[in-house]
Amino acid sequence: MSDDHTTNDDLREVAAVDHQADPDAQPDAPDSPWRTLAAREVYRNPWLHVTEYQVVRPDGRPGIYGVVDPGANVTIAALDDDERLWLVRDFLYPIQRYSWSLPSGRVETGEDSLRAAQRELAEEVGAITDHDEDWSLMGTYYLSPGVATQRSYLYLARHARLGAPQREGTEQAMLARQRPLREAYDALLRGEIDNAVTALGVLHAWQALRGPQT
Amino acid sequence: MSDDHTTNDDLREVAAVDHQADPDAQPDAPDSPWRTLAAREVYRNPWLHVTEYQVVRPDGRPGIYGVVDPGANVTIAALDDDERLWLVRDFLYPIQRYSWSLPSGRVETGEDSLRAAQRELAEEVGAITDHDEDWSLMGTYYLSPGVATQRSYLYLARHARLGAPQREGTEQAMLARQRPLREAYDALLRGEIDNAVTALGVLHAWQALRGPQT
Repeated sequence: MSDDHTTNDDLREVAAVDHQADPDAQPDAPDSPWRTLAAREVYRNPWLHVTEYQVVRPDGRPGIYGVVDPGANVTIAALDDDERLWLVRDFLYPIQRYSWSLPSGRVETGEDSLRAAQRELAEEVGAITDHDEDWSLMGTYYLSPGVATQRSYLYLARHARLGAPQREGTEQAMLARQRPLREAYDALLRGEIDNAVTALGVLHAWQALRGPQT
Repeated sequence: MSDDHTTNDDLREVAAVDHQADPDAQPDAPDSPWRTLAAREVYRNPWLHVTEYQVVRPDGRPGIYGVVDPGANVTIAALDDDERLWLVRDFLYPIQRYSWSLPSGRVETGEDSLRAAQRELAEEVGAITDHDEDWSLMGTYYLSPGVATQRSYLYLARHARLGAPQREGTEQAMLARQRPLREAYDALLRGEIDNAVTALGVLHAWQALRGPQT
């Protein structure tokens, strides 16, 4: 944490940074109890960037805030006409293990979230639907909003059917299978699904088909 | 993405990095289809660090993988004897807005996740319970495992009662209130909760009290 809030050579004044020059620039919301003095991009790769903001905290003390931006995510609960859900098994490098999850991926720059969901389902599972009307947005979730801007769009795809997957080079180890939605929902309630967006996708798909059970 | 996988001055050989020297060092799991050649810490602050790994991807091509480590998280669904749930309202800097969520925070280095949950509930809400037996782990979730190592431990606290909150300087704008668990569960089913761990905490607290409703 910085000991004072004077800018230095590494820190550009926020006032001088506009959104076109730097998509990370984050002017303070009108109701923010934080005050942002400067922004510095500390890391960027094609999938992720990290910005460190020099701030005045809500208690008036100087500090920093590191914000991670991995872009938006789409996650898809795709069901065939027998209410079987598609899951994919992939090796997740950050946690160093294989995991079953709903098909999921990044919304590319300028891409609509529905198109991203359709693209990811086609790439990872090879499943498609005949009509855009088979798709609906079930919810949107911030995944770790104290650290990251990342938001996930959860889509339901009904009447999906299989084509051929077109996986990326990083996804060569991926497998797809189907499981009855009811089984996946029971696994969720038993705490056996350990991926947050997969768990929420299964919950909302169940609710969409069964209606509220409160 | 790098065009080859030769190491350079900025990249330490993974073989030379042990966990004591660098907690980010990540030897490949035996079943990993990725091969890690080197690791380089690209950003660190007291709450977050980011490591870039130089890798051979599952398709045999060279590449990089950026991994974010914000540490583990605890999230608490705390209920009083009338099944009212505590929620806190705080300004979330990364998404630049106020949000209601379950009390939540970081597991400090060396801290047990149950103690972290009890500490965060006391700090943010001022609520305590009389017995450790009032606490149970409802589930653990990876929040964004394609990007981050972060895992959240979801705790249920029963028979909680109010003391005085002891918030940190960054939490001066925080408010707490109570809401009947049933109302929170209905809001979840309507897609009105946009924070992933809060949604999962409400789901599992409902299931813990009501039992499976499948």
